[in-house]
Amino acid sequence: MRAKYKLIASPIAAGLVCASGAAAQEAAPVASDASVFVFNTLLFLMSGMVVMFMAAGFCMLEAGLVRAKNAATICLKNIALYSVAGLMVYLTGYDLIYGIGEGGIIAPLNIFWGGDESGALADGYSAHSDWFFQMVFVATAASIVSGTLAERIKLFPFLIFVALLTGIIYPIQAGWVWGGGWLDARFDDFAGSTLVHSTGGWAALAGAIVLGPRKGKYVGGKVAPIPGSSLPMAALGTFILWLGWFGFNGGSQLALGTISDATDVSKIFVNTNMAACGGVVAALLLTQALYKKVDLTIVLNGAIGGLVSITAEPLQPAVWQAILIGGVGGVIVSLAVPVLDRFRIDDVVGAIPAHLLCGIWGTLVVPLSNSGVTFFGQLTGIVTIGAFVFAVSFLCWLGLKYTLGVRASEEHEHLGLDKAELGLEAYPEFTPG
Amino acid sequence: MRAKYKLIASPIAAGLVCASGAAAQEAAPVASDASVFVFNTLLFLMSGMVVMFMAAGFCMLEAGLVRAKNAATICLKNIALYSVAGLMVYLTGYDLIYGIGEGGIIAPLNIFWGGDESGALADGYSAHSDWFFQMVFVATAASIVSGTLAERIKLFPFLIFVALLTGIIYPIQAGWVWGGGWLDARFDDFAGSTLVHSTGGWAALAGAIVLGPRKGKYVGGKVAPIPGSSLPMAALGTFILWLGWFGFNGGSQLALGTISDATDVSKIFVNTNMAACGGVVAALLLTQALYKKVDLTIVLNGAIGGLVSITAEPLQPAVWQAILIGGVGGVIVSLAVPVLDRFRIDDVVGAIPAHLLCGIWGTLVVPLSNSGVTFFGQLTGIVTIGAFVFAVSFLCWLGLKYTLGVRASEEHEHLGLDKAELGLEAYPEFTPG
Amino acid sequence: MRAKYKLIASPIAAGLVCASGAAAQEAAPVASDASVFVFNTLLFLMSGMVVMFMAAGFCMLEAGLVRAKNAATICLKNIALYSVAGLMVYLTGYDLIYGIGEGGIIAPLNIFWGGDESGALADGYSAHSDWFFQMVFVATAASIVSGTLAERIKLFPFLIFVALLTGIIYPIQAGWVWGGGWLDARFDDFAGSTLVHSTGGWAALAGAIVLGPRKGKYVGGKVAPIPGSSLPMAALGTFILWLGWFGFNGGSQLALGTISDATDVSKIFVNTNMAACGGVVAALLLTQALYKKVDLTIVLNGAIGGLVSITAEPLQPAVWQAILIGGVGGVIVSLAVPVLDRFRIDDVVGAIPAHLLCGIWGTLVVPLSNSGVTFFGQLTGIVTIGAFVFAVSFLCWLGLKYTLGVRASEEHEHLGLDKAELGLEAYPEFTPG
Repeated sequence: MRAKYKLIASPIAAGLVCASGAAAQEAAPVASDASVFVFNTLLFLMSGMVVMFMAAGFCMLEAGLVRAKNAATICLKNIALYSVAGLMVYLTGYDLIYGIGEGGIIAPLNIFWGGDESGALADGYSAHSDWFFQMVFVATAASIVSGTLAERIKLFPFLIFVALLTGIIYPIQAGWVWGGGWLDARFDDFAGSTLVHSTGGWAALAGAIVLGPRKGKYVGGKVAPIPGSSLPMAALGTFILWLGWFGFNGGSQLALGTISDATDVSKIFVNTNMAACGGVVAALLLTQALYKKVDLTIVLNGAIGGLVSITAEPLQPAVWQAILIGGVGGVIVSLAVPVLDRFRIDDVVGAIPAHLLCGIWGTLVVPLSNSGVTFFGQLTGIVTIGAFVFAVSFLCWLGLKYTLGVRASEEHEHLGLDKAELGLEAYPEFTPG
Repeated sequence: MRAKYKLIASPIAAGLVCASGAAAQEAAPVASDASVFVFNTLLFLMSGMVVMFMAAGFCMLEAGLVRAKNAATICLKNIALYSVAGLMVYLTGYDLIYGIGEGGIIAPLNIFWGGDESGALADGYSAHSDWFFQMVFVATAASIVSGTLAERIKLFPFLIFVALLTGIIYPIQAGWVWGGGWLDARFDDFAGSTLVHSTGGWAALAGAIVLGPRKGKYVGGKVAPIPGSSLPMAALGTFILWLGWFGFNGGSQLALGTISDATDVSKIFVNTNMAACGGVVAALLLTQALYKKVDLTIVLNGAIGGLVSITAEPLQPAVWQAILIGGVGGVIVSLAVPVLDRFRIDDVVGAIPAHLLCGIWGTLVVPLSNSGVTFFGQLTGIVTIGAFVFAVSFLCWLGLKYTLGVRASEEHEHLGLDKAELGLEAYPEFTPG
Repeated sequence: MRAKYKLIASPIAAGLVCASGAAAQEAAPVASDASVFVFNTLLFLMSGMVVMFMAAGFCMLEAGLVRAKNAATICLKNIALYSVAGLMVYLTGYDLIYGIGEGGIIAPLNIFWGGDESGALADGYSAHSDWFFQMVFVATAASIVSGTLAERIKLFPFLIFVALLTGIIYPIQAGWVWGGGWLDARFDDFAGSTLVHSTGGWAALAGAIVLGPRKGKYVGGKVAPIPGSSLPMAALGTFILWLGWFGFNGGSQLALGTISDATDVSKIFVNTNMAACGGVVAALLLTQALYKKVDLTIVLNGAIGGLVSITAEPLQPAVWQAILIGGVGGVIVSLAVPVLDRFRIDDVVGAIPAHLLCGIWGTLVVPLSNSGVTFFGQLTGIVTIGAFVFAVSFLCWLGLKYTLGVRASEEHEHLGLDKAELGLEAYPEFTPG
């Protein structure tokens, strides 16, 4: 459970809102209530800003890894999915996450979140700052989907799925944990390895299965690599994601206003950074060992895999543990692509290994550093959330397939979605024709 | 009125600097004076940083929307205009904004602003932090101009105009409102829909008229689209602008150090974000309905139009109102381009619809959410500032035209400004010749 | 000396941790100890984030200035060097910087930095936040090297050098000053003109000498310009570096929690910004005067040169002095390239003028604004650090040359490192073949 109720639920954090009380922080000096409130709110705003910017990171990563003929369309999908996510979190999403009562499954909708600040003082932060922070998390899950399904999915069916994912699917499972639902007491996911990244990955996997691979990807039992159009753009996207992850994980501490919280956020920054370093170096060495060449796209995904892996618990591990956890993420990313290809699952940017598999890994490893967390509890969360998100997403994709259709026509796919769906070219002067 | 005198002038904010006094914030807990000072200063610094980064956003947006043969020149213009703006705000601009006494028109210049921190404690923030925040706003107005006039304006005349705009024109009108001049009591513009965005737009419009359209844009009564060279770069620029807008609007609260201010800044973040979402979705649906294709460049401008629209008042509207205000911005952007083309006004990046027209719209709609603001007052500001900026800019452009000349020669325009003015190519390997 | 011991060593800053004591800040109001702690920590985190993002800035700058056939490799080097820097600072670097006792040369290694927070309360900030801030500084020095040596150095030897630079060479000299070593009392370098930028520049220079110029750069006594593949990408990189520099210099105040510190950080922001503006305008005017054309790449380096120049002392100079200091940096950058070419030192991105020479200039000019600093002391630091870094780097490069080899084969260089070392292309659709 986090955010809205944390300060009430957690005995440690409870000290926050009465931090000027004598015993609250033992011998440590305390800030005034007002300063604590402003610090906590500022953490949400500052973190939310860089997590919002992760939308640009995904956009660059994906635009760099698709072919030039689909680069404008993937940019459109990325700015549109963020916007749809914003509207849907407003219409239903936020209420679905936090409207669920203790132990409940679905709460009555409080349509049109009113931005109620009445409880803010007791919560220790502004309700709007929390809302912003939660909204950008939801958008992140949707960004994961766009990469996997690039180059062949039609624009509007994709955006309808995004609306369902961000307005209903993500919020229900997030409510189970962060909203204080039935999983909250059993399962631990600090910043969303499972709740955000695996959720996006499961939705992407369901879509990839329904959609099928791109033409020319699997020909006669062979896998034909389809190189991306701008690897420097993909590198930029990865750096932006890395930057945003400080807000993603650091902001998930949900509080900054005490010495204890500021110290924790700092530890989270270091662990997040070092897990990414571990993922990069592991992917670098492994691809060199396996293929005798370093594969840049795998190394970039190694960074992301490392970041996803530490997201379930970026606070408790020692720094060397964070490096190892991230390093294993880099290994997973390096090894998983051939496995997906064996099943002819065409994941254009490698989002399923980086977000889904590393999300599972990161969630499973939490008990090693957190004594109160069990493997069984973690498995429970991974399986139930995975089954729910995958099954509902699969049904949504099927529903879209048999109504609007989800897949661009063969002619459109060949021509490129930029010309076919947008009537323009991403790089009219750089590509012939 | 804002910034320098706000804490003295405003009865609400006056409580800030004596916030530990008993009655200042009613029953709410208060931070110490020193914490309030640091929070307020930090808001300016953090916001100023991301607004500074908007210069990169404009650079990417414009570089992506010009042809490859002018892409290096537009980058040069963008980094140079920011630098010229910095120097001019230092030399004359800041003093012109804030040197105007109550009700006055022009104050004696205090050339070479000395960075006087003597009043800082009473102001509740560091003078330098405010200076930085104001400077990046001025640069934003100049960035708007470079996009409209791209691909045909000569470098040095452009930079001379930037010096006049940022050192004299912008500061005079900003002084009328934010400096406590004659418009301040009548007119409300929270973060600069009119003062920054329309001002940039009017200056760009005057320049576009004096300069004339690019060769080949209007041929025999027809409009020939001239596609941009890198739409993913334009998308990146838009995301960067979106990011910067949190600082642009959020920082314009001018204070963060109380529970009330932190709550307001949070609301501003949410409204700013949601107005952009509204602009994107409106432009997306409208271009699909009108043209049966979604136009990515219009959708990107829809985001910007939504952001400009909410800038005049990002705090008071309810979230659903912010979505609508931004959505209308997206509609304006989608519909205005053909109108400009009818008048043969060649606006390379669509800055006039997004910044000038949406700036007017955003300013006009303020009375709907702010009870103390009148339509007549808003119109007074829009018209007087518009007339002043347009007229003086027009004279400056004419003066430049008849002295140095403003327009690149036909040969240079054909060759591209990169080769003609810089002697290089932006993408020597991607474009033939 | 800075960071770890600053609050103990400095009489001014000592007031920080007992800031609620009566006389600490004279008449100024003071924040609570806890707020001061959180502010200081937040400064490190916020600054560290944007300095981390400078890795993306270097990546974009370098990818834009190399030829397309080496663009993917330079991106790989940039993300890998940051990751190697992170691991090495963890393994040895941080301990080498701060493990040196007063006046000592080398401290016993405390391998595997444990993230000891025990002294944090007395220090006034979280140890992890400081660690993160120091780590990203080390990475910056390594980023400088990759640009100079691009397009011809082999990947793994480069990364081994990065490990030596970030794990041993940089930390030893940083320990001499910021770690409280023998130079600390004699030499002043606020944010690292010498310690970071010249250090990176010396290491790059040594590498460039050992490595030799690219094939085709110096042919028959003539210098053949080798144009970069994407100047807009280089412009983006420069803007990102500019953004990051607010954290680089502002964060080097090492404290934010008092009115005095917040005021100083604000002054640093303004001076940093204005030095860059000065560098841009100086390079712009000078290249126009010298070559009758404005050279975009020199103007971009003018911004960087201005920023490096103010880094040794961004706080004390008046704003107009900062503009001049940065302007001289822009002049140095504009004039130094031909000098390097005379010695056939092939510096692909111009990092040696911008970082090494401007670093020396910025360090030498400190006594003009800081009364307690002597030219002799500054020279002592410049010479000893320069001699140490250059000599040890040179030996490392020679060692690598005669073992693994450092230079790509002529065939690989001709083919491009992307195809040769990575087996892929950065822009497969934009470049023929």
